[in-house]
Amino acid sequence: MNLSFIGLGQMGASMARNLLRAGHHVTVYNRSRDKADKLGAEGARVAATPAEACRESEIALSMLADDHATDGVAFGANGIASALAKGAVHVSCSTISTAMARRLEREHTARGQEYLSAPVFGRPEAAEAKKLIVVAAGKPDLIDRCRPVFDAIGRQTVVAGPEPAQANALKLCGNFMIASMLETFSEAFATLRKSGVEPHLFLSVMNYLFASPVYANYGGMIVDEKFEPAGFTMRLAYKDVRLALETAQEVGSPMPLASLIRDHMLSAIANGQSELDWSSLAYVAARNSGLR
Amino acid sequence: MNLSFIGLGQMGASMARNLLRAGHHVTVYNRSRDKADKLGAEGARVAATPAEACRESEIALSMLADDHATDGVAFGANGIASALAKGAVHVSCSTISTAMARRLEREHTARGQEYLSAPVFGRPEAAEAKKLIVVAAGKPDLIDRCRPVFDAIGRQTVVAGPEPAQANALKLCGNFMIASMLETFSEAFATLRKSGVEPHLFLSVMNYLFASPVYANYGGMIVDEKFEPAGFTMRLAYKDVRLALETAQEVGSPMPLASLIRDHMLSAIANGQSELDWSSLAYVAARNSGLR
Amino acid sequence: MNLSFIGLGQMGASMARNLLRAGHHVTVYNRSRDKADKLGAEGARVAATPAEACRESEIALSMLADDHATDGVAFGANGIASALAKGAVHVSCSTISTAMARRLEREHTARGQEYLSAPVFGRPEAAEAKKLIVVAAGKPDLIDRCRPVFDAIGRQTVVAGPEPAQANALKLCGNFMIASMLETFSEAFATLRKSGVEPHLFLSVMNYLFASPVYANYGGMIVDEKFEPAGFTMRLAYKDVRLALETAQEVGSPMPLASLIRDHMLSAIANGQSELDWSSLAYVAARNSGLR
Amino acid sequence: MNLSFIGLGQMGASMARNLLRAGHHVTVYNRSRDKADKLGAEGARVAATPAEACRESEIALSMLADDHATDGVAFGANGIASALAKGAVHVSCSTISTAMARRLEREHTARGQEYLSAPVFGRPEAAEAKKLIVVAAGKPDLIDRCRPVFDAIGRQTVVAGPEPAQANALKLCGNFMIASMLETFSEAFATLRKSGVEPHLFLSVMNYLFASPVYANYGGMIVDEKFEPAGFTMRLAYKDVRLALETAQEVGSPMPLASLIRDHMLSAIANGQSELDWSSLAYVAARNSGLR
Repeated sequence: MNLSFIGLGQMGASMARNLLRAGHHVTVYNRSRDKADKLGAEGARVAATPAEACRESEIALSMLADDHATDGVAFGANGIASALAKGAVHVSCSTISTAMARRLEREHTARGQEYLSAPVFGRPEAAEAKKLIVVAAGKPDLIDRCRPVFDAIGRQTVVAGPEPAQANALKLCGNFMIASMLETFSEAFATLRKSGVEPHLFLSVMNYLFASPVYANYGGMIVDEKFEPAGFTMRLAYKDVRLALETAQEVGSPMPLASLIRDHMLSAIANGQSELDWSSLAYVAARNSGLR
Repeated sequence: MNLSFIGLGQMGASMARNLLRAGHHVTVYNRSRDKADKLGAEGARVAATPAEACRESEIALSMLADDHATDGVAFGANGIASALAKGAVHVSCSTISTAMARRLEREHTARGQEYLSAPVFGRPEAAEAKKLIVVAAGKPDLIDRCRPVFDAIGRQTVVAGPEPAQANALKLCGNFMIASMLETFSEAFATLRKSGVEPHLFLSVMNYLFASPVYANYGGMIVDEKFEPAGFTMRLAYKDVRLALETAQEVGSPMPLASLIRDHMLSAIANGQSELDWSSLAYVAARNSGLR
Repeated sequence: MNLSFIGLGQMGASMARNLLRAGHHVTVYNRSRDKADKLGAEGARVAATPAEACRESEIALSMLADDHATDGVAFGANGIASALAKGAVHVSCSTISTAMARRLEREHTARGQEYLSAPVFGRPEAAEAKKLIVVAAGKPDLIDRCRPVFDAIGRQTVVAGPEPAQANALKLCGNFMIASMLETFSEAFATLRKSGVEPHLFLSVMNYLFASPVYANYGGMIVDEKFEPAGFTMRLAYKDVRLALETAQEVGSPMPLASLIRDHMLSAIANGQSELDWSSLAYVAARNSGLR
Repeated sequence: MNLSFIGLGQMGASMARNLLRAGHHVTVYNRSRDKADKLGAEGARVAATPAEACRESEIALSMLADDHATDGVAFGANGIASALAKGAVHVSCSTISTAMARRLEREHTARGQEYLSAPVFGRPEAAEAKKLIVVAAGKPDLIDRCRPVFDAIGRQTVVAGPEPAQANALKLCGNFMIASMLETFSEAFATLRKSGVEPHLFLSVMNYLFASPVYANYGGMIVDEKFEPAGFTMRLAYKDVRLALETAQEVGSPMPLASLIRDHMLSAIANGQSELDWSSLAYVAARNSGLR
């Protein structure tokens, strides 16, 4: 297929590479050209604008940091919407708000273009290893059409529903699940350290108990205080928890635990942890226990 | 070995049975005699009081609901402490407070008896299947002496430290980890239900993501609202979260997420959920979202 | 002075009336004409659009429900900005976000117009009685120019700083102070009712203790469950707490108590209390205690 | 009347002094004798033990730091209960738990003695100035009998109900009301400082708005960071919030705001603020905002 891929950060570059490996024709665009050129060396066509990138694409994928970046790339000058062919699909893999997903659907539809939300779960290593979980939502026939693309970047595709924003709601709640695990570990470790129990020991029991690679991975990062380089920055994680709360507000559902995490992440940022990994949330509980 | 086992609830009965199966001589005691007689039919000696049960034991295990019951069985009339031989060990497997563990250690030591804390992780099915995780703490030589007992009831024994209360701190924090997962699921499900996303779908994504049997099990109970019969009642879970907070207070460590869960469990109890499974915590978030 | 007043709700109508009484020429506009006509009968000129209302004004005051309404009246078709003379001042008395205040300042400045934020404290009765507290912020000379207007509507004018948004930050934090008092009363009353202590009795002690008319007023509303007609709806109060949290986020300051209140207000709304007075927050604590 | 007064801290000494001034015969006892001798110089008889102090009293008042101290003075060796005449009354003015109040009632009743709870509101200055608010609970005839005593120490006596513990529940909820005001101020000040709004300015607006001496007093302490010498230490305040939560738990009423305050006070203590005034709670919000 003729594809385009906009946004070549840690995640996006690996996803685009896997599309190339699967044999698709991929035109890439990135704000800072050097990242695009790297993909160019691996067989991608490099475009100078999002518009140029997707002019001849059947499917244009975007993987950007947030609503603001997505809005600019989709609807700014030389944006995707200005060039995408009628009937072609814009697939947003970014973790964006449900409000933004509705805006994308509305605007593309108004132009005779198609839109799907397909946010992904997985850290950069998973993107590289083609092991993402893809959560897609939108018209069933479009999802069918895009399935080869999803198969090329992930190990599993789940369909969240017929409205694109449903995938984003699911993705935001999933990130909340992980963030909550981080907060829980943080509080438990602070209490246990002050109780004289070795953190690694607690982690090993939790590994027996939960038997989850996610617990093992993040628990290990916290115990060893390995917060740099960040796989996912506190700044972006904070954004995601805020978006989860916005979705919850839209539908009228309080999420007090998400609020608590949001406040702790804001405290982390106010104390200089913006660019550390989000697992550095543990520092907030530690400070509140007088441990740092 | 000559063992005694006090407290034959859902958990205790299975643990005692596994000790019998491992070839130990086990004398059992339970407040309501019928449960003891059941074990009697399987080869245990049945005693009329805790004192009688442990008079000739090398190791006396207790598995009771809470501090109050443990205190009564240990130090009440005809309690363990009144009969246990010098040098013999009382092993408390119950989920009790760190303060109670210190009291047990102090009192037994004063009588020339030994004490270990060895709380366990696992629901009744795991106790039955000999798949508990045993968290032991106390003098290393005592732990060595009791290891055959731990091996007979669990799949894994972890040593938390040289002070018995450390095992209880670890256990309480572990239960907090699970309780937090329940609260997180509860809030996510409420928001997703109001967003039109199928709860089973979200659960399946979480199963791909966390790949944890604990998530699968409890997530499934919540999605299907299978809160009866309770594997672990809200009433006891509430007690455990309170004990975790007490430990945190002792060592000077705030646990705001544990506080949040405590308050939601108290709300659950105030709304009649005392004897439902603790996974019915989901009803609190549902009510606060106007879903029930 | 030649004034205009846009937005004649419960608060705005009383404020406009007090400006008339003080001898100013006031042109009024309201979306639903009948409220404007009422003021017309009392001496105001009635305009058909915001633009028409403020074409010849030295000062244009607006008093609207939220950011959205303010944006429409200020920058929509036939909005204030399209007609206000160079050098004339738009004074927004509404409780709007700090972000909206900055936008108003930016846009008016770009057109050679002036802007002040001057939100007010006080319920409809206080507006009627000319007893509002006016919190003004912006260029000092502009504040001086507008002082006769502030004196005509309030009992006290406080200057928050040279940047308009500072008045809005202060106002939002002030509303948070009241909302917090409501939540505190709510939890205390729930616990005391379940303890068999008469709520009126507790209120009378709090009146001795705090000696504050605000406590007396709101405490009385809660004890007597007088939540209709609403002096200030839950819907609008919820908006204000959200705006306080947005300001806190902008400057990097967690407000966990504001988050708690926001979540309880959202729960109130999800349970049908949207149009009750915000003091009906007490129902949330009552429900969580199993009292309703 | 023949009175005795046990516990001559900042509060107790002033209360005992006011009883002397009102013409009562007062025998005093304090753990560290020097404080008792001071009162001795003002006309009190000084006793060597609580028992000796109250042997001939019609009414024995106690004013102690907490449950533990009260228990010791009441039921320890040479305690009140060992010496108080049948029919004489023990009046506990301390801020103790509702559980402790029930224990006092039960034990004194078993000895043919009488018991009243009469906790007081007011800081040391108010105790000195005879301006306390006395909250009494117990048998109506006993309250009548003790009224001259209450009149001698306070400006107002409120009867909470026929069961002593009701006065303690009310007192604990009242302290929670003040603690909540401290937390609210703390969060508002942190946000406003980061917004460039002068804290004194905000305080002056809150003084116009609430018109409460309690707000003026505590708000001023926070703004000026006057946390020493402590009128009421963080350590004792923390104890009170915990007792409020215990009462709430007894009756089945969640108090999430009290939980939040408890956690922040625990963080304050973990960060070395144990002996500062409880208004230093403001440091917690400041730290979480990166301000300290």
